[in-house]
Amino acid sequence: MSPELSWHPDRLFPSEPTVRDVARRLYEGVRDLPIISPHGHVPPQWIADDVPFTDPVSLLLTPDHYINRMLHADGVPLERLGVPPGSRVLSDAEARAAWREFCVRWPLFRGTPMRYWMSAVLVDVFGLRMRPSAETADAIYDGIAAALDDPSFRPRALMERFDIAFMATTDDPCDDLEHHEKLAVDPSFTRRVVPTFRPDRYLEPARPEWRALMTKLGRASGIDTDTWAGWIQAMENRRAYFKEHGAVSSDHAHLDAETKPLTYANASRVYLKALAGEATESECKALQQTMLFEQARMAADDGLTMTLHPATYRNHHTPTFRAFGPDVGCDIPISVEFTRALHPLLNAFGTNPNFTLVVFTMDETVYSRELAPLAGFYPSVYVGVPWWFIDAPDAIRRFRKAVSETAGFSRTSGFIDDTRAFLSIPARHDMSRRLDAVHLAELVAEHRLDEDEAAETIHDLVAVNPRKVFHLD
Amino acid sequence: MSPELSWHPDRLFPSEPTVRDVARRLYEGVRDLPIISPHGHVPPQWIADDVPFTDPVSLLLTPDHYINRMLHADGVPLERLGVPPGSRVLSDAEARAAWREFCVRWPLFRGTPMRYWMSAVLVDVFGLRMRPSAETADAIYDGIAAALDDPSFRPRALMERFDIAFMATTDDPCDDLEHHEKLAVDPSFTRRVVPTFRPDRYLEPARPEWRALMTKLGRASGIDTDTWAGWIQAMENRRAYFKEHGAVSSDHAHLDAETKPLTYANASRVYLKALAGEATESECKALQQTMLFEQARMAADDGLTMTLHPATYRNHHTPTFRAFGPDVGCDIPISVEFTRALHPLLNAFGTNPNFTLVVFTMDETVYSRELAPLAGFYPSVYVGVPWWFIDAPDAIRRFRKAVSETAGFSRTSGFIDDTRAFLSIPARHDMSRRLDAVHLAELVAEHRLDEDEAAETIHDLVAVNPRKVFHLD
Amino acid sequence: MSPELSWHPDRLFPSEPTVRDVARRLYEGVRDLPIISPHGHVPPQWIADDVPFTDPVSLLLTPDHYINRMLHADGVPLERLGVPPGSRVLSDAEARAAWREFCVRWPLFRGTPMRYWMSAVLVDVFGLRMRPSAETADAIYDGIAAALDDPSFRPRALMERFDIAFMATTDDPCDDLEHHEKLAVDPSFTRRVVPTFRPDRYLEPARPEWRALMTKLGRASGIDTDTWAGWIQAMENRRAYFKEHGAVSSDHAHLDAETKPLTYANASRVYLKALAGEATESECKALQQTMLFEQARMAADDGLTMTLHPATYRNHHTPTFRAFGPDVGCDIPISVEFTRALHPLLNAFGTNPNFTLVVFTMDETVYSRELAPLAGFYPSVYVGVPWWFIDAPDAIRRFRKAVSETAGFSRTSGFIDDTRAFLSIPARHDMSRRLDAVHLAELVAEHRLDEDEAAETIHDLVAVNPRKVFHLD
Repeated sequence: MSPELSWHPDRLFPSEPTVRDVARRLYEGVRDLPIISPHGHVPPQWIADDVPFTDPVSLLLTPDHYINRMLHADGVPLERLGVPPGSRVLSDAEARAAWREFCVRWPLFRGTPMRYWMSAVLVDVFGLRMRPSAETADAIYDGIAAALDDPSFRPRALMERFDIAFMATTDDPCDDLEHHEKLAVDPSFTRRVVPTFRPDRYLEPARPEWRALMTKLGRASGIDTDTWAGWIQAMENRRAYFKEHGAVSSDHAHLDAETKPLTYANASRVYLKALAGEATESECKALQQTMLFEQARMAADDGLTMTLHPATYRNHHTPTFRAFGPDVGCDIPISVEFTRALHPLLNAFGTNPNFTLVVFTMDETVYSRELAPLAGFYPSVYVGVPWWFIDAPDAIRRFRKAVSETAGFSRTSGFIDDTRAFLSIPARHDMSRRLDAVHLAELVAEHRLDEDEAAETIHDLVAVNPRKVFHLD
Repeated sequence: MSPELSWHPDRLFPSEPTVRDVARRLYEGVRDLPIISPHGHVPPQWIADDVPFTDPVSLLLTPDHYINRMLHADGVPLERLGVPPGSRVLSDAEARAAWREFCVRWPLFRGTPMRYWMSAVLVDVFGLRMRPSAETADAIYDGIAAALDDPSFRPRALMERFDIAFMATTDDPCDDLEHHEKLAVDPSFTRRVVPTFRPDRYLEPARPEWRALMTKLGRASGIDTDTWAGWIQAMENRRAYFKEHGAVSSDHAHLDAETKPLTYANASRVYLKALAGEATESECKALQQTMLFEQARMAADDGLTMTLHPATYRNHHTPTFRAFGPDVGCDIPISVEFTRALHPLLNAFGTNPNFTLVVFTMDETVYSRELAPLAGFYPSVYVGVPWWFIDAPDAIRRFRKAVSETAGFSRTSGFIDDTRAFLSIPARHDMSRRLDAVHLAELVAEHRLDEDEAAETIHDLVAVNPRKVFHLD
Repeated sequence: MSPELSWHPDRLFPSEPTVRDVARRLYEGVRDLPIISPHGHVPPQWIADDVPFTDPVSLLLTPDHYINRMLHADGVPLERLGVPPGSRVLSDAEARAAWREFCVRWPLFRGTPMRYWMSAVLVDVFGLRMRPSAETADAIYDGIAAALDDPSFRPRALMERFDIAFMATTDDPCDDLEHHEKLAVDPSFTRRVVPTFRPDRYLEPARPEWRALMTKLGRASGIDTDTWAGWIQAMENRRAYFKEHGAVSSDHAHLDAETKPLTYANASRVYLKALAGEATESECKALQQTMLFEQARMAADDGLTMTLHPATYRNHHTPTFRAFGPDVGCDIPISVEFTRALHPLLNAFGTNPNFTLVVFTMDETVYSRELAPLAGFYPSVYVGVPWWFIDAPDAIRRFRKAVSETAGFSRTSGFIDDTRAFLSIPARHDMSRRLDAVHLAELVAEHRLDEDEAAETIHDLVAVNPRKVFHLD
């Protein structure tokens, strides 16, 4: 007899009765509110074409580098999981075998949010209550596969069922946004799916492909990118295009958060050198910072919220990168600095009423030291919720404890799921609501907040802050 | 009906009954002990001249940059709050409007200690139990204003009522300390108010005003400051003057904690260059470190405790600094390093029985990594309690958990309020006593400490450690 | 009446009944499992020759720099405690006086693990239940001294009583390992005591004694160390010798974790310069990194697990170092970086199935930011349990909360006591088991893990992970 997969209604609530009871009540007040997802990685085509999911592995394992990396650490070769996504179609036998590799290794995920999210998907989405193991692997696989044949498990139906009111995808600046356009003109689609402007690669002149990207940018915008003035205009053009298609933000991830700009004259000169392939490493870096600064300036003009999440050492294991490409689990965080790095940007735009900046980090040390102090002064700055590896219960509780005492709740972003694991989106938002309920319940239990205030606060965190921070109507 | 402002007798205690009950008992043992405040920013003239407070805003909002910065982040212009303090007298209508801005934004402060301290002031000091809001703003304003007309709300009466036995102010090395002198010779004043020697600006040759300060220092000390030998003598002279007027410490805040000194010959040479305005940036920095090192040497001679709290990026938003000056809420912490930085200073004076150093930080990472290990070896080093932004319940609990396991309780400073918010001083000390009670109660509940030991420890933290660390008689 | 020394069966368990009850059950499942100690500092001769302990001070105080440093911070001169160990034999009067200094200062250790470990030694090992104080100092001293005369308190008997199944010592690469050999060939000794290869000094060409060490290495290995090729061969030779004598790991502690190697040609050249005393500081550093990289390469060949614990500023107080030598309590941690530093090493060996790396830190910031992400991808990397100062209850709980959400439990090392305090070994392992029980019990109480999973996990942490990580048969 394999044990049942547990999924307790009080999950994530502490057992101490006073805190638990308040947490339950606070959570009840927001549990059924629609999901607002202002930043994520779901492919827009899934929604636009209502693409049916094919099999459990390509849906739940292949694209989930949180899970794959742990399997890899335990000795499972990535290719066996179909990584990278889209590289090849696993046969049914291969997919079953991959699913079994995962189920056998279910104990690896104890204590991790991956166990939580997958449990939610199995129980809440598929109604399956077997704990993954060698014994249950096939039955669970069959259960999921059967469900995926049903139209009620296609992306649009799930989006309704999950009550996702708003969802932003992540898109290349030169993308024509055809999927978003298709959704926008479809009267049968009542949810809102918008693009996000993600220009990282266009801002990093040291990349080998950068010059080709400038050509591509020129073509997409119809603006000559042979000069610094052209780059600026072309970027403004593409941002405007995204905004016309519903975008509410631009998203930025470089190795650090430095924002010291070159003068216009120097930027013009270095840009030409970079185009000619003659810019030095430090010139490339200076130009990159200038470009990020320019994005902030444009944001203060066009009102797109700027989200910033720096300090990841991408593709740490070079052999894995060569074999499988990026985003397969070997990105590793590094420490980050914001106070000095953001000084130029915030001096220029920090009090601009049309500028909004959300800062994310995987380096928890900056929450109390830098981010909460910055957000507690600058009207434009919001502290993003825990990002990537630290989007997990204990880390989220540390985040609230580190940030709230300096910046309260109003200066935080509201929940961001940042995920490509579409089926886990409800569980991620639900987790966040539960954890905010616990944090607030502790304040109430310690007589640091009245319960009516806590109830209003959690409602704001779920329904008001994201609308305010991302300027949703 | 506006809700009552809650102020529960068990505030800050966890709801778990075992811990709460022990915490209550530990707290009861120290709740009524007199306040010792060895470092703060109350203007000595307030006490010396028993200056009546004029209105709620200039008393409670204008000088409180913790509150102002959050209002600013929410869009309230600083000038509307009368910032900077003393810049102008708000009309009654302006003050009422400013107070209303604050009351309407009371929800911003949820989860912050500002809410806690202000609640304490309203309930405990003024006996007002209305929760701030648009509806209650005027009534609260009137309630405070009425009280301020009463002699029992003048500084000396409040100091008696608050039972502040000892209070140190923060003063310029060239200050004549007339207010302290007035208090010292006043037989009707039985409390102890002493100056603190705060020479930062005199130790930073890169500052534009530094040369003028040297002239001022020369005048105040009557010693020629045209040479390095003169600087040393003049500083010794002013420290002696402060000590004669009751000072027990000197206070130091630079951008980092580096203490590597130049040789005497090099210091002499660089000092002359600095006076001539010809010292390079790195020479200025080297001279600054030498001057800080010299202050430590003097401290080992004259026995003034040295307090050190580096690593703040002052006046982060230049336009705000230009418009309003310093100390208006846009100072932002940066990361700090102590192990290497303090090596020269501690090698020279770390085991000197006449030297005492209290180190404060806003970078919490150094508590377990550097400060507790240093304080657990050097007889001269004490870990200061959480400073500035992190002087708040959750951060204070993190501090105790990070420091105690390596350095116990004896190597910590006792509570330091470091505040200019005079009326919140009792609430700040009370908060600290409650939180130490909770930390110790948890140790007792987990059978890591006996309750009699915990009771003795909390008494030491309140009544013994500050006397020992600041050499109070 | 002096109070009894408390030693509660529920110690370290929280008082909240749900969590406490689960923790009790989880702990019961592992409390009596044999001790596996894969890294420590017990002198092998103690076991080999079954050396009787002479007196309480030389056994419990003189070698324990955790305790000595706190006494030193409180003003006790180190020489009074017989420091450094072996420097001289304290007379009985001196030893009694030293013991009294400690007992009088028992309150210093409140909140520290030193109080916990010493309580365990007094109660569990010696059956003494007097709380240390001036009044009880002599009686406790006499009680310990009397026990030490009994054969049941000799090292081998204690090792049986403590049920230490496996213990690794720490040894110089040129050590002839005679004590280990003696134990190996002794049929009456059924426990396993093995050496650990600790080559730090041989990898630091900037040390004044380095050239002499190369000569020593040449002699011990019988291989000419006059060339880089010779150094490599000699090291391989000594590692093989250690492995033959049962070693399962090599242990490494430098100031940082940098592992960028020189090319073979450059290493050969710089090695010759270093031997000639002509290598620059940066060449010495580069060679050191190369040598550490080479140790990893050898580890991937010979299968010895590599343990790494960098970032200690050794002998911070130079006068104390001059008077007493190393390891007397003035080593202070500094911040550390792993993501970039380990990049070369992990690119070369990170997915090598024969390579195992355990990384320890005293800089807690790297747990969630760097170590858990690295261990969650690289099959070779394990996160070591909290090291040195942070091997204490609250820090251990922070460690589990910081690491588990990203890397689960399977990617952690199992408990490492790393101690020279032989009598405290059972208490240290017991503490770890209790704290893992509490961490897991909280997950169970919050419905994040089922109790059967938690029971299996804690069993793995105690009995499986160390065997896997250190390749014990």
